[in-house]
Amino acid sequence: MIDPKAVLTHLDELRALTADDDGAQRLAWSPVWLKARAWFEEKLTTLSTTIAPNLEHHYDAAGNHWVTLPGASEKALVLGSHLDSVPNGGWLDGCLGVLAGLEVLTSIAKQYKGEPPVTIKLVDWADEEGARFGRSLFGSSAFAGTHSIEADRVRTDRDGLTLEAALAHCGYTVESIGEAAIEQKNLSAYLELHIEQGPILEKLGKPLGVVQGTKGVERWAITFRGQEAHSGSTPMEVRRDALAACAKLALEIRPIARKHPQSVATMGSVKTFPGIVTAVVGRCEATLDMRDLDTKVLAQMLADAQAASEKFAAEEGCTVEWSKIWSIEPIPFNADLIRLCDQAIMETVGVSEHLPSGPLHDAAEVARVGIPTVMMFVQSLNGLSHNKAEDTIREHIEQAVSALNALAGKTITWILHQ
Amino acid sequence: MIDPKAVLTHLDELRALTADDDGAQRLAWSPVWLKARAWFEEKLTTLSTTIAPNLEHHYDAAGNHWVTLPGASEKALVLGSHLDSVPNGGWLDGCLGVLAGLEVLTSIAKQYKGEPPVTIKLVDWADEEGARFGRSLFGSSAFAGTHSIEADRVRTDRDGLTLEAALAHCGYTVESIGEAAIEQKNLSAYLELHIEQGPILEKLGKPLGVVQGTKGVERWAITFRGQEAHSGSTPMEVRRDALAACAKLALEIRPIARKHPQSVATMGSVKTFPGIVTAVVGRCEATLDMRDLDTKVLAQMLADAQAASEKFAAEEGCTVEWSKIWSIEPIPFNADLIRLCDQAIMETVGVSEHLPSGPLHDAAEVARVGIPTVMMFVQSLNGLSHNKAEDTIREHIEQAVSALNALAGKTITWILHQ
Repeated sequence: MIDPKAVLTHLDELRALTADDDGAQRLAWSPVWLKARAWFEEKLTTLSTTIAPNLEHHYDAAGNHWVTLPGASEKALVLGSHLDSVPNGGWLDGCLGVLAGLEVLTSIAKQYKGEPPVTIKLVDWADEEGARFGRSLFGSSAFAGTHSIEADRVRTDRDGLTLEAALAHCGYTVESIGEAAIEQKNLSAYLELHIEQGPILEKLGKPLGVVQGTKGVERWAITFRGQEAHSGSTPMEVRRDALAACAKLALEIRPIARKHPQSVATMGSVKTFPGIVTAVVGRCEATLDMRDLDTKVLAQMLADAQAASEKFAAEEGCTVEWSKIWSIEPIPFNADLIRLCDQAIMETVGVSEHLPSGPLHDAAEVARVGIPTVMMFVQSLNGLSHNKAEDTIREHIEQAVSALNALAGKTITWILHQ
Repeated sequence: MIDPKAVLTHLDELRALTADDDGAQRLAWSPVWLKARAWFEEKLTTLSTTIAPNLEHHYDAAGNHWVTLPGASEKALVLGSHLDSVPNGGWLDGCLGVLAGLEVLTSIAKQYKGEPPVTIKLVDWADEEGARFGRSLFGSSAFAGTHSIEADRVRTDRDGLTLEAALAHCGYTVESIGEAAIEQKNLSAYLELHIEQGPILEKLGKPLGVVQGTKGVERWAITFRGQEAHSGSTPMEVRRDALAACAKLALEIRPIARKHPQSVATMGSVKTFPGIVTAVVGRCEATLDMRDLDTKVLAQMLADAQAASEKFAAEEGCTVEWSKIWSIEPIPFNADLIRLCDQAIMETVGVSEHLPSGPLHDAAEVARVGIPTVMMFVQSLNGLSHNKAEDTIREHIEQAVSALNALAGKTITWILHQ
């Protein structure tokens, strides 16, 4: 009943429509993103005029797009992901989950002649990436009630346009986004298929994996302050070089993370001031992003990194200051659904793997409000994503669609037995 | 005959005229710089109407301002420095040497009733700092014939204005700047007083020092290339982190420099790409500035740093590329003038010191063309310069003016005996 190749056809169509030579350009709240959503609505029209006449769809107060195939029970199984991309993004990140979900919904509609035993929903979350305004999981956090309206409304893109104005341009009011929480009603399970965006499944030679949950994140801005000085006239022994203190930390976060098997720690940005060839660095600003699936491990890493930074600052005659950018607790997925997902993968490809998700996903926001949730990962080539080199073997994509369909079937049965 | 306090009065006047709350603003080719030069011309007018009726002055083809007090011999003793400053600069860097030179010239004019035994010149070099277009020693290199017109004409300031246009605005033609070399004629010795801009004299408790020469400089841009990757999904062991390779080099240049007593090595700028909190750094661009008074030591440091960078790149799965920004050989000053400068300092303050100059100075360009040259340093407080915190004890400034005057007297005698 499921037609995995249809998903590949849709992915290719969407790429032709919304990517250029540099990659996907479906930046949230942009004309290209709206074009992708309009294209997706056409697919729904086709579906409702052929197989699913009861199909309904609407946009909620935060711009999330909900498609509903009403079932015998109001209890709903939800499939979802996001159509938005980073600038110069890949052809799979986000849209794979939406288009695979569309195919699974189509398959279920066919199987049950338009009326499945439980309601089936498909959601395209708004602005998962946060690539334009720096606010990831925008739509799903509004749904989950974890939004931060006052902080977010004044966020600006690189042209100085506010998030509030971009939303207004698309017909949304920033004050009202919390009303998206109404969509939580009757949701009994949430399934999300996504590319892994990392190298683990490829290294193991496995096409698919069950996601145990999303790692907690500690995200900090760190500023070392020393003394700007002339590079020619300042002897080495009297320097207070803020870059040296920061360089020590850039190296030390690695053994700190490697103490724990699944931890990662990343210094993604370093800025030097005055940042000229002829001056010892007086101020060095860095970012640190640390992740683990275990709250205690994450807290230990943060404490270790802070202690190391104090030590290095003292060694270099500098001071150091930490300022939190953002953090989130580790979010484990539902144990029953993890088991069902593992079964579906085993039945489809004969081999499975449990792994945590380092990247955040809308699924984390759904899981936070207590809706049973699980994600399935399909292998990424070379672990690349967020650029046009992002890729997955087409056969693996087909296997992922089949496994998602099998998981949906198992989840319907599971919902009926709750 | 010399009036050191007159220099302090002039320095205070110039500060009041050309500094704001952020420091000196005499950026070369700017209105404030032209205002400083006009103010200086008024001082010359006063001098020629009172003490030195034969005083002549003119601007050469590169914008250097030459003041001439004709003497019995055409052989000329030149005193010089620069009135231009970096933005938000200090009250002494550059202008101290010009205004001390003016006072010494005045003193000599008085002493010899307008006609000294040798010709006395005073030069205010144009654009020593290179702060606006990135081309240091602009005027003195044109004088020395080491200019680089084709490379320089297209240099732009932060507003996109070219050096060529800025020159034209001040009445100069970039093609013609080499004609400034005509000013070399009959120059027999060059003396420059400057603040140290470093902490050495202050640490030693000495007001004044003799400069042995200017250190050679190797200035390079270094690019490490690894692999941009997602900070959440990329395990530590598969990363190719360009920042890690660069951080290792930032730390390693320090033991490389410390092998040699007077060497310095500075990583002044680090830029990370994409430079976002959620990505492992794929590309890291750094600058390196290394200096020593010994050509062989400088070459060894460069070789050591390059070898270290290759090793670190390999360790981190990265590549590294070096691109030369600029270099200059070490330039030793004249042995006779060093001896005379030492005597003048000893006679004035009873204690002296030999030290190299890490910063470049116009004196280096003058020495390059074979004109006997020496510089005198006066102590800087806290080694600070190029910002408004730059300072020197006023008594030390007075001592410096007296010592420069004594050195000028000795140098006149020395010229007459050549």
